[in-house]
Amino acid sequence: MTGSLDVAGLGPGDSALVTPEVTAALAAATDVVGYIPYVARVTPREGLTLHASDNRVELQRAQQALELAAAGKRVVIVSSGDPGVFAMASAVFEALQQSPALHALDIRVLPGITAMLAAAARAGAPLGHDFCAINLSDNLKPWALVERRLRLAAEADFAMAFYNPRSTARPYQFARTLEILREACGRDRLITFARAVTTPDEHIETVTLAEAQPEMADMRTVVLVGNSATRKVGRYVYTPRHAE
Amino acid sequence: MTGSLDVAGLGPGDSALVTPEVTAALAAATDVVGYIPYVARVTPREGLTLHASDNRVELQRAQQALELAAAGKRVVIVSSGDPGVFAMASAVFEALQQSPALHALDIRVLPGITAMLAAAARAGAPLGHDFCAINLSDNLKPWALVERRLRLAAEADFAMAFYNPRSTARPYQFARTLEILREACGRDRLITFARAVTTPDEHIETVTLAEAQPEMADMRTVVLVGNSATRKVGRYVYTPRHAE
Repeated sequence: MTGSLDVAGLGPGDSALVTPEVTAALAAATDVVGYIPYVARVTPREGLTLHASDNRVELQRAQQALELAAAGKRVVIVSSGDPGVFAMASAVFEALQQSPALHALDIRVLPGITAMLAAAARAGAPLGHDFCAINLSDNLKPWALVERRLRLAAEADFAMAFYNPRSTARPYQFARTLEILREACGRDRLITFARAVTTPDEHIETVTLAEAQPEMADMRTVVLVGNSATRKVGRYVYTPRHAE
Repeated sequence: MTGSLDVAGLGPGDSALVTPEVTAALAAATDVVGYIPYVARVTPREGLTLHASDNRVELQRAQQALELAAAGKRVVIVSSGDPGVFAMASAVFEALQQSPALHALDIRVLPGITAMLAAAARAGAPLGHDFCAINLSDNLKPWALVERRLRLAAEADFAMAFYNPRSTARPYQFARTLEILREACGRDRLITFARAVTTPDEHIETVTLAEAQPEMADMRTVVLVGNSATRKVGRYVYTPRHAE
């Protein structure tokens, strides 16, 4: 028997946003590997082994999944959102690079609805023009690089989406982000805080940068910043398709 | 009867990538509005009126959909990919802004798998670190702004995704894009051409900027450019999670 590895995105939370492709992969799996809360979203059944692990062990988790697949299992690694956006797909290919014997393994990445696009949909269309996505965590890169990217993104007049904006372990960085944005984009720029999108805890709020407070974000929040043309209509916020 | 308007993303092509949320919205619709090839992806049935229109009339199409919803219809506007990424959602809110009488209308944006994330999944994980998305068409913005964004994105060391890279009406722009990228990112930078992703015509090819030719892209292609750390492993291309 030849094993396989699918790296699957479960979307932001609502099961109505899980693609049929991912549902089929889970139905065919012998083993599911992932961070504890994501594995908890998979319905247990006979013949399926669930391997839940802690958050900060992406590379070990990827290695474990590769080994199970090499041993003939049909493995699915589950990520929240899309596996290719600040999630497990990159870690899997890093682990693969360290294991040349496994390069022939059949690996598929199954896309999912990523948090920024679910959040944008709930808010209106704030990412309706050129935009960028930045992970504000400095666990895997120096904070100076984040600041540099924020300033260049503002100069390019990109709309912006921020993943992992703030955690209790690093409250300072998001406060600094707001300072940089006020300076680079002005106090009237619109910013949307989208917490726990598509779950029962969902909370969406659009304010100006002048009104934005660091405490409006936590690790369950995706933050969207408009470009210079982003505006409100009724309860929606959107970025026009045109630019000058 | 109160009408409603859903702006729905059909994903890149494969029906296994249409979310159950979108499938349910189409099943409940009385009217479907959209660009001809996207409406062609909706199965006709009794009680459902299909309104297919040409490509360059987004604002009229949005207006038509708003009017149908205001008249009590359950309307779904269909977009390819995700409606919030270079698609119909922004046009709908622009049209809404012109129709203050309709501001109370119930509008939902239903996210979909956008082309760049489907393409990234097929290629590996080239967008696995901070990235930007740029529409290379200069129909709705000056070309000078596109060039400016390309240079700033390269300076920020973002991975990049390009929508609408090249059409027969504007072959020059993508050739110019490759020149700018070679200058700003070097000739060894990896670039992926993903054509007709998830359809029977799918073709994915990763080359260096030195090898890239303008003819490798057309309007059915999404182009992904790595950052300075993007590399290949086996048949995959990925961008590491870490940066220095």
